[in-house]
Amino acid sequence: MFGLKINRNLDLSLTRQLCDQLRELIEKGILKSGQRLPSTRKMADELQISRNVMVEVYEQLTAEGYLESIVGSGTYVSKNIVQDRYINNSKQIIKSRKEKKIEENLDIVNNDIIQFVGGIPDLKLFPRKLWSKYLKNTVQNSTADIFGYGDILGDFELRKTLTDYLFRVKGIQCNPDQIIITSGSSEGFMLTARVFTNKYKSVFVEDPTVNFIKTIFNKLNYHLKPITVDKDGMKIEDLEKYKQAGLILLTPSHQFPTGSILPIHRRQRVIQIAETTKSYLVEDDYDSEFRLKGVPIPPLQVLNSSRVIYVSTFSKNMSPGLRLGFLVIPTDLINDFRTVKNTLNIRTSTIKQRAMAYFIKDGHLDRQIYRMKKEYKKRRSYMITLLSKKFGGDITIQGDETGMHLQLEFLPEKYNLINWNSAEQYGIKIISFEEYSLIKGENKNKIVLGYGNLDLKNIKSGINRLVEFVEDEIKE
Amino acid sequence: MFGLKINRNLDLSLTRQLCDQLRELIEKGILKSGQRLPSTRKMADELQISRNVMVEVYEQLTAEGYLESIVGSGTYVSKNIVQDRYINNSKQIIKSRKEKKIEENLDIVNNDIIQFVGGIPDLKLFPRKLWSKYLKNTVQNSTADIFGYGDILGDFELRKTLTDYLFRVKGIQCNPDQIIITSGSSEGFMLTARVFTNKYKSVFVEDPTVNFIKTIFNKLNYHLKPITVDKDGMKIEDLEKYKQAGLILLTPSHQFPTGSILPIHRRQRVIQIAETTKSYLVEDDYDSEFRLKGVPIPPLQVLNSSRVIYVSTFSKNMSPGLRLGFLVIPTDLINDFRTVKNTLNIRTSTIKQRAMAYFIKDGHLDRQIYRMKKEYKKRRSYMITLLSKKFGGDITIQGDETGMHLQLEFLPEKYNLINWNSAEQYGIKIISFEEYSLIKGENKNKIVLGYGNLDLKNIKSGINRLVEFVEDEIKE
Repeated sequence: MFGLKINRNLDLSLTRQLCDQLRELIEKGILKSGQRLPSTRKMADELQISRNVMVEVYEQLTAEGYLESIVGSGTYVSKNIVQDRYINNSKQIIKSRKEKKIEENLDIVNNDIIQFVGGIPDLKLFPRKLWSKYLKNTVQNSTADIFGYGDILGDFELRKTLTDYLFRVKGIQCNPDQIIITSGSSEGFMLTARVFTNKYKSVFVEDPTVNFIKTIFNKLNYHLKPITVDKDGMKIEDLEKYKQAGLILLTPSHQFPTGSILPIHRRQRVIQIAETTKSYLVEDDYDSEFRLKGVPIPPLQVLNSSRVIYVSTFSKNMSPGLRLGFLVIPTDLINDFRTVKNTLNIRTSTIKQRAMAYFIKDGHLDRQIYRMKKEYKKRRSYMITLLSKKFGGDITIQGDETGMHLQLEFLPEKYNLINWNSAEQYGIKIISFEEYSLIKGENKNKIVLGYGNLDLKNIKSGINRLVEFVEDEIKE
Repeated sequence: MFGLKINRNLDLSLTRQLCDQLRELIEKGILKSGQRLPSTRKMADELQISRNVMVEVYEQLTAEGYLESIVGSGTYVSKNIVQDRYINNSKQIIKSRKEKKIEENLDIVNNDIIQFVGGIPDLKLFPRKLWSKYLKNTVQNSTADIFGYGDILGDFELRKTLTDYLFRVKGIQCNPDQIIITSGSSEGFMLTARVFTNKYKSVFVEDPTVNFIKTIFNKLNYHLKPITVDKDGMKIEDLEKYKQAGLILLTPSHQFPTGSILPIHRRQRVIQIAETTKSYLVEDDYDSEFRLKGVPIPPLQVLNSSRVIYVSTFSKNMSPGLRLGFLVIPTDLINDFRTVKNTLNIRTSTIKQRAMAYFIKDGHLDRQIYRMKKEYKKRRSYMITLLSKKFGGDITIQGDETGMHLQLEFLPEKYNLINWNSAEQYGIKIISFEEYSLIKGENKNKIVLGYGNLDLKNIKSGINRLVEFVEDEIKE
């Protein structure tokens, strides 16, 4: 009947198979508008299937508008259906499997490149067992509301836990209303950029600094004003001359990429500037937990909680794969941030937030940080030893007190012409300060060496490749 | 010495306690700039603590810039520190615990209100055991790269799995490159709005429709052009007269809030319009799996994959708390979407994506949908029975073939003046079509009744309250 075919070996139901075929017959005009169809009984007999299936098929196609049922008369192909143009996309080939295979192979090659990029913690040391236990407990034992949309500002349990944690570890005093949970610090910056988009025209950024932040503010039409970074972080005296309100973005605990720490007199000065110009400081505290000696440096937020927007993330102390971060904002700004959050309507899953709350409460975040600190310390000393042995007085190492990266500065006269991009041919990925700089040409002899996601073996081969590359480059 | 105190019962390390106190003494000017401090040995003796702790304290405060160490001379309070203004924020009261208690109590009262709002599935029936098992397995057994930032377009494993799933369940043919994973359909709309922000000025929306979508497009300065919805969905003939390129947003499988299904002749017509005006259709397929009879209606995407942006979500068939959704986009638009995704730099956690991939592969999504369909079917019939018994010929029920909500229309002459907002005083939350309408005044007698998150007992008391409320309202 109409060439309808049934294939009992297919993974598709009989109803689906018949609907698909009848639709095609109608769209192609083989079954004409207004044409009467045989009864379900007759069709079922013909195709040797249960009549129920045929009833289902007719009902389905009637609901979709392909068929019309006229009481006491029968079932007809609907009028109004365009039948002369059959949009054939069944020939579209699902080719991507093979394409992807090639990409995967490329990836393997790519994996062999030792990545000295900063900002990625050791993914292999993620506390899998513990985290999966907390996820499991959360999913199995929480009240059902964790499966709902959840509070757009973040799970209250996590925000409450963070106030205790932040006070204990960083000295921050705030209440849960000041905390906004984000899916990583990138969302934190985006929200901040949006809150002030009609208020400020300028954003003062450290130069050099990470690129994604520049993109966020550029896109929202802020003027980016670079402020040079020296060995003590942002040069606040250069900022002072602007006497202009705006957002001031800085990484006082561990500048990226230089690794500098902003000393107290510069901190006080930048807070004074914020107060007199009615600016806000946006403090990016991405990895200060990993201060390898002593305790983390108290954030700017502690010096003045009404002028500082504190941006943090679990990407470095746990894993970027969690997509979890938070803001601590001044009380005055709570409503503005809430409005922006509601407009964007982007929420973070409550499940992982709740799991994180209990993970922190039970002391596991502290333990993980402790473990990672020890690990990073080992890697850092090993790296520094190797570097000093190979390059001797040709290099200066800076920014090695915190985190998972350091700054390697080569004697400019000898190394200024190195094209760091070509290091990939030697099996290492190196990012030079030039790529992070707004004002170009001043940092050609400086590179970032991230060691967060590299074990000792990788560090060793990586440094060997670096030496080989640098020697070949300066020979030329 | 300097009034320094040590409290061994505190949850803070000795180093932290001493650093905090010394910082305060310096900021207050009690310890003056340039003042020489006693040696670590002397301090340690005085405070009866280990000298190592005191060394740590001095090193910490030196790193922060509070102290300076001069070789062969000793440790001094740094110069340049502003000492006349001590920013006192230690008095900031963490009051929120108590405030929150009050809010929580309000919540309990709030919970007693029976929510007839649409769009929320039964959170109590979330497959907790299974989902926690898949999360656990993913976290414990995947390769470490799932803890990294991940592919910004989404985990390849999930995108590949979705191509198979979408073909099997909805007839969609696409390859993984066309799929973009989002954190819910709301992000899907936001990305779409951004991709076309410089290309189109107008967005044609169903009237009535959900409000969050209007907000997204409004915010990006699109002109919202309302197209009336009747019992067959968007009135495509009204759209036709515009002859103008733009985005056309629609919910063809189950319109929200009317519940109508767009029949095939209107589908063909709207696709033709998109082709001739070079517009794109944005198909919101939020709950078509829950077609209570037969199989899901094939999406518009199947009719023309190059003019349709297909927006979907796991919020309805699994849970909003997962924050997981996806887009299927035409091949031509892949680069544009990638650019917007990169600029926004918002990613979805790979962990849950990978877990979802295996959950789908193992057939659990199908099983969950099957289970929920049966449940919703029961609730729907029960609700319809109650409604018919109580209101008889005064009501018409529509849109009851799919999903988790239906449209209840009252005879206009008798019920037109009901103020549905005041239903909360009767313990029910009812949203009328007026709240979803761009053109006001035409839908006062229509309400949405969502039953996704209400069990039979709640439905019964809810309908009783509805009857009581309506009777009191029309008496006045």
